[in-house]
Amino acid sequence: MGCASSKEEVALTPLSDVNAAKEVADLKAQVDQLKRQLASAGQSAAPAAAGAVKGGVVETLFFPDEKLPCRNNRRPGGCKRQHCEYSHTPTSLSRFLDYLGSATRTLDICVFTITNDDISDVVLELHNKGVRVRIISDNDQAHTQGSDIDKFRQAGIAVRQDKTAAHMHHKFAIIDGRLLLNGSFNWTRQAVTANNENVTVLSDPKLIASFQQQFDKLWDMFK
Amino acid sequence: MGCASSKEEVALTPLSDVNAAKEVADLKAQVDQLKRQLASAGQSAAPAAAGAVKGGVVETLFFPDEKLPCRNNRRPGGCKRQHCEYSHTPTSLSRFLDYLGSATRTLDICVFTITNDDISDVVLELHNKGVRVRIISDNDQAHTQGSDIDKFRQAGIAVRQDKTAAHMHHKFAIIDGRLLLNGSFNWTRQAVTANNENVTVLSDPKLIASFQQQFDKLWDMFK
Repeated sequence: MGCASSKEEVALTPLSDVNAAKEVADLKAQVDQLKRQLASAGQSAAPAAAGAVKGGVVETLFFPDEKLPCRNNRRPGGCKRQHCEYSHTPTSLSRFLDYLGSATRTLDICVFTITNDDISDVVLELHNKGVRVRIISDNDQAHTQGSDIDKFRQAGIAVRQDKTAAHMHHKFAIIDGRLLLNGSFNWTRQAVTANNENVTVLSDPKLIASFQQQFDKLWDMFK
Repeated sequence: MGCASSKEEVALTPLSDVNAAKEVADLKAQVDQLKRQLASAGQSAAPAAAGAVKGGVVETLFFPDEKLPCRNNRRPGGCKRQHCEYSHTPTSLSRFLDYLGSATRTLDICVFTITNDDISDVVLELHNKGVRVRIISDNDQAHTQGSDIDKFRQAGIAVRQDKTAAHMHHKFAIIDGRLLLNGSFNWTRQAVTANNENVTVLSDPKLIASFQQQFDKLWDMFK
């Protein structure tokens, strides 16, 4: 077997090429990392990230609550009980109901499962007062025990559901286009009294616009 | 004169070196330009500048994604496939992973169920890089198929769980005390590829403080 006759036949990788190849690889990794940083910093070498907005956080409601709010205490005339086992001071649920009940024009609800009657009663009251209520929920959950979906439909509220085995897993509501309730909190009794849950109350216009866009997209999809 | 006995003795300056040198120069220029971009965005070129934007809301990630991100494309050297079925452009999951991966000091995770290996790999990498990772999850979910809780424990990550039949139902993470990922999104594959889900990326200091307080409270409770 003779020696290689010319450079091209010499399939060698001189040391300088190895270093250069390594330097190129390192620099490429650095470029990728800087691009990811820019992308996640709301700036991006690619088109701007959706929803990179300022300000707009009202509060966060954490659950579970120790007590359910007293329904009578929330109605004109108040609670007449001597020893009421329910709460007469604000709880996360009572504040949630207050936010919900503050709707005067529109209430778009997009929640995986709705079985909590304290919450449903407020939704039905708003509907009866002329607020335009629309509800998106999960098709499988609508048939679970205690679901309020049929109650909403019978009252004339527009309800749509996904049509897949996947989960329509959102838990958000948009109030008058100015307030967003969003978090881990399904509208169930267990979520109020037992689970560890959160609801962020947000008023940032661009954030609300991105959730409204998502609601409208799903509303069309689930016709 | 015998053949070259080893690569080191061959002092060639093959054409490839000229190209490599040019590629190195181009890449260096690109790195400098990205660093200037980051600097003008008020970010330092150091890792984890992500999300340190003024105001409270960075963006919202909606799911499902049409494709999973290409793992090779996210690693130095990139993807060599001719026809890759995975995404090479940003998706909600890839942006989520970028935010998560931007942690440099602490990562507090409070999530109902964690089975998505793309996400768990980033968490394990951060732990191995010395980020202090703490995880709170749901006791029942930890025993479901595909749960990554045991993997985290075996790697030495501190994990605590609730001890009740109720759900530890939160789905949030706090990154370096400066960024909150929160929403309906459990860290599962189905949540990425099939469910309707959201993750809000929030940087409001007061909001983060309230979630940190909740995390610390549950961390103590679940000792």
